[in-house]
Amino acid sequence: MGKYTDQQIIKSWKKNVQPWVAAIREGEIEERLLVTNQAILNAIFSKTPKAVLDIGCGEGWLVRELVDSGIHSFGLDAIPEFIEYAQSAGGGSFKAISYEEISSNTFSEKFDVVVCNFSLLGHECVNHLFEQVSTLLTRNGSYIIQTIHPIIACGESKYADGWRAGSWLGFSDQFIDPAPWYFRTLESWEFLFKQNSFNLHEILEPMHPGTNTPVSIIFIGQFDG
Amino acid sequence: MGKYTDQQIIKSWKKNVQPWVAAIREGEIEERLLVTNQAILNAIFSKTPKAVLDIGCGEGWLVRELVDSGIHSFGLDAIPEFIEYAQSAGGGSFKAISYEEISSNTFSEKFDVVVCNFSLLGHECVNHLFEQVSTLLTRNGSYIIQTIHPIIACGESKYADGWRAGSWLGFSDQFIDPAPWYFRTLESWEFLFKQNSFNLHEILEPMHPGTNTPVSIIFIGQFDG
Repeated sequence: MGKYTDQQIIKSWKKNVQPWVAAIREGEIEERLLVTNQAILNAIFSKTPKAVLDIGCGEGWLVRELVDSGIHSFGLDAIPEFIEYAQSAGGGSFKAISYEEISSNTFSEKFDVVVCNFSLLGHECVNHLFEQVSTLLTRNGSYIIQTIHPIIACGESKYADGWRAGSWLGFSDQFIDPAPWYFRTLESWEFLFKQNSFNLHEILEPMHPGTNTPVSIIFIGQFDG
Repeated sequence: MGKYTDQQIIKSWKKNVQPWVAAIREGEIEERLLVTNQAILNAIFSKTPKAVLDIGCGEGWLVRELVDSGIHSFGLDAIPEFIEYAQSAGGGSFKAISYEEISSNTFSEKFDVVVCNFSLLGHECVNHLFEQVSTLLTRNGSYIIQTIHPIIACGESKYADGWRAGSWLGFSDQFIDPAPWYFRTLESWEFLFKQNSFNLHEILEPMHPGTNTPVSIIFIGQFDG
């Protein structure tokens, strides 16, 4: 599947900024309202952080929630239009930056938690980001990722890392040109942590209250460098 | 599902000792031949252990393989009849002992690897065993578990820990009264390691060469006490 790239993800999201902001702010995504928003908040709260960095923050809802709870929080996103929405809404600091540009020099401060909430959908850019995260963390800081659960997402395709076609199924008809995404097996996620000297400290599987399957998976890694 | 217990697993296996020994020794289980036997051996070899303890060793094939590779190996099983078969075949040391009886006093020596290859199918007995394993390991020793992959095994049932009915589907008609088994989610497996002060160091997903899904899952934990 040589036809998909990280750049296409950005291109697609740029076309869907307005419907996405509406979907988040008007609570259109049931699984987020019922399960995954609270799940990522609980995971972050469990680390009692003073400072949190949200990478792939979108229009900024998670940063605002954390700031409301008294946690100093900063949001980054590759799409400048999302950052404009985030800054207009206030509550927290925001900056537009591509994952490829993130490095140990991006901040002078360190964060107790770096969180990626459904924002690791690319390939090389994610591998690059993983290499940088430890430089952004305080000692004993945690890297918390919520993402698509391999159990749910694999479907009939081969259970192997690779690009998959995107879909806006279940979203409003305002969404166009769905972004491709890079499927990773459980083994591959675990290896990303290990390869970058993180202990995979927790795996959580937030469950939908009305169905029999997990809605997402949350990994919590601790740097062991 | 209050109807199943750890004791029933033992009862069922006692009725199936002879067909199981035949199935293992005559290579009747395709997934073992094609995938999982080599996968567990590779996982053990990757730790270059001097001494290995195989808990739930059955008729002893894995201990014999390890001894053939020059690794001092000991096998334990709760079913005395399996241990008799293992001892008759030679190659390694074997002892019959229930999981509930295993403790820091079971051995005076320590092992670099404790392995459980498809032998953690119970409930309380597995929780007990997990509490004991660190006392059997050398410093920086590894606990390696190969088990049923939650992705494969969940089926239409609720994705939640609990007893499941057994099945001998795909086995010879010599097998009777299949043992129930206790399903654990990925989150629960991870928590068992964490709760007992193990870092979950690796997760492997051995793949069937001819299908699109993993055949099993291998967890490698390192004691962090």
